[in-house]
Amino acid sequence: MNSPPFRFERLHQDAHCAARRSVFHTPHGSVQLPTFMPVGTLGTVKGLTIDSVRATGAEMILGNTYHLALRPGERVVAELGGLHEFSGWQGPILTDSGGFQLFSLAQLTKIREEGAEFRSHIDGSTLQLSPERAIEIQEALGSDVAMVLDHVIELPSDTDAIRDATERTIRWAARCLASATRPSQTQFGIVQGGLDPALRVACAERLSDMPFGGLAIGGLSVGETPAEMYQIIEVTAPVLPEDKPRYLMGVGRPQDLLEAIRRGIDMFDCVMPTRNGRNALAFTDQGPLRMRNQIHTHDKRPIDENCPCPACRHSRGYIRHLFRAEEMLGPILVSAHNLTYYARLMADARAAIEADHFTDFFHERMRGWGEIHSPSAN
Amino acid sequence: MNSPPFRFERLHQDAHCAARRSVFHTPHGSVQLPTFMPVGTLGTVKGLTIDSVRATGAEMILGNTYHLALRPGERVVAELGGLHEFSGWQGPILTDSGGFQLFSLAQLTKIREEGAEFRSHIDGSTLQLSPERAIEIQEALGSDVAMVLDHVIELPSDTDAIRDATERTIRWAARCLASATRPSQTQFGIVQGGLDPALRVACAERLSDMPFGGLAIGGLSVGETPAEMYQIIEVTAPVLPEDKPRYLMGVGRPQDLLEAIRRGIDMFDCVMPTRNGRNALAFTDQGPLRMRNQIHTHDKRPIDENCPCPACRHSRGYIRHLFRAEEMLGPILVSAHNLTYYARLMADARAAIEADHFTDFFHERMRGWGEIHSPSAN
Repeated sequence: MNSPPFRFERLHQDAHCAARRSVFHTPHGSVQLPTFMPVGTLGTVKGLTIDSVRATGAEMILGNTYHLALRPGERVVAELGGLHEFSGWQGPILTDSGGFQLFSLAQLTKIREEGAEFRSHIDGSTLQLSPERAIEIQEALGSDVAMVLDHVIELPSDTDAIRDATERTIRWAARCLASATRPSQTQFGIVQGGLDPALRVACAERLSDMPFGGLAIGGLSVGETPAEMYQIIEVTAPVLPEDKPRYLMGVGRPQDLLEAIRRGIDMFDCVMPTRNGRNALAFTDQGPLRMRNQIHTHDKRPIDENCPCPACRHSRGYIRHLFRAEEMLGPILVSAHNLTYYARLMADARAAIEADHFTDFFHERMRGWGEIHSPSAN
Repeated sequence: MNSPPFRFERLHQDAHCAARRSVFHTPHGSVQLPTFMPVGTLGTVKGLTIDSVRATGAEMILGNTYHLALRPGERVVAELGGLHEFSGWQGPILTDSGGFQLFSLAQLTKIREEGAEFRSHIDGSTLQLSPERAIEIQEALGSDVAMVLDHVIELPSDTDAIRDATERTIRWAARCLASATRPSQTQFGIVQGGLDPALRVACAERLSDMPFGGLAIGGLSVGETPAEMYQIIEVTAPVLPEDKPRYLMGVGRPQDLLEAIRRGIDMFDCVMPTRNGRNALAFTDQGPLRMRNQIHTHDKRPIDENCPCPACRHSRGYIRHLFRAEEMLGPILVSAHNLTYYARLMADARAAIEADHFTDFFHERMRGWGEIHSPSAN
């Protein structure tokens, strides 16, 4: 069941696979699904103005609770009008919960049933993050979608540790729901369970019974192989409610997105398009281009002739020059290109689902990228 | 006399000072004067897309011959269509000659009558820069306005050294004119002469007799006081032809621009708005704001309520946060703000000249900046 201001509208189910076409309505506007959310960790998608982010085709962005709680602090964001006003992004915003930092900053973290205690990666000060506190921060930030605090651990881990983290994730999810005070914010639950299909299914079933606005699959892209990740998506997605958005957290490469969409996933986020963009790697339908490479020096062609982004109004030779000269414009342009690439990929995927030929689209793109796709998918 | 595709159109002379309102027509469009040219050293105004640069109100930009000759090399720029096509800037472009690097990279430079020899500041390789070569590079770059190679030296220097450099500058200017092969490019001569009024006047007279498309005052802002600089402008500008644009190179602060305009200068360039922008210093009519300052933490006001730039759609608190978090967007936004500030200052100056009240405008702005203006000006 969605919270009142939120509505998940199913438009079409592909006839040949689990890919689905839907719309997620929020207080800050509607999002066409499947969608990719650019990551705006600290209230900015790195290197891009809000107009530039919107011009990529993005409809919803992500902010990071842990990072914003440290800098500038959620109270400052709230005083400055909340995350929408602060960042200038007037569309829907999803905030993560800090759960991923339990994994990525594990050496700085102590976890108890009550919650997690971080030593700040910036100044060593202490940040307490309980389920209630994670929601309190996200309510102060004013995001449309708050993620529950989950317990993310590295893979592989032993079964007991995974079971323990999964059960804690379920208890924490209930505490997050119980602490909600803002009707204009919905919460998404997060399925954990490592690479154990039974744990994943059990967790998904438990969370599906709770009144979340959507469900996420978390704890992936943390050390397992792509095949292992696809397998977990394949067993988990069918257990999730059909009438709520499904969000695969922190994933990933273009091929990962298509592999997940055909298994029924609707939403994604990842730093890859912007981080890779800053490192001169540009995504194309023929695979990534490394823009520092000498081969581009005299190349008059844009990165992608069909791309409407500001980078593709320039030659590859110019883009290469910018990176060689360490000009800020190189990272700016290729970040914009990559986000545009991801947004166009999602738009093309949506059109393919509507036409019931997502599977053909999938194979065509995989061939372009030089990928052997994973054989199993419903 | 202007080269055929170039035309200098005088619109109005302020009734109470030497400030003048004119238009400079070039093959890539017309420029309303007085104007400020953002510096695009390496084929990019640092941190800004071409659309962003245009949105600041800039009409003409500057590229650096020395830097582009080293990276990516003028041949590469030419192969990629010339500097307009390379950078994406379709408006007028002025290129400097490398003369300023004779001063700024003096330790890497040997100067003979034939020309200068640089050791590259990047890899130590050798770059020869004669007057003919400076024009050859600028013709390959395809700028609308090429600057002659001049001999810039530090101030103070002894009289013999200044006289020697000034006379060399005149000889080099003639060689530059003689080596021109492209009718679609005009050349500007550069007046040198240090802080010696007689040398400046003599140099200006000599260059005024040559068929340049415009005249520049160079060798300032290299160690002298503002008062000394204004004095040199005041004695030099009246000697320059009334029917050609007058360009003060590498200057400077907003107050310097107004001081120069009321002495008859039409064109400016400086890295200050972008360099200061990257360092979190934002220009306003009340003087500069240091955006890292804690005082801005909770401030909901934009840098300037009347500014149309993308930075001023955000709170000061947000801008401060970006710099504190070392986000690229901080430098991007404040660079855009500062260039917008400079462009608006020039637009306001033009309107003031047209209304014959530039002097009032000058005093009003100086008061806002907390400046005591220099007493002498025609």
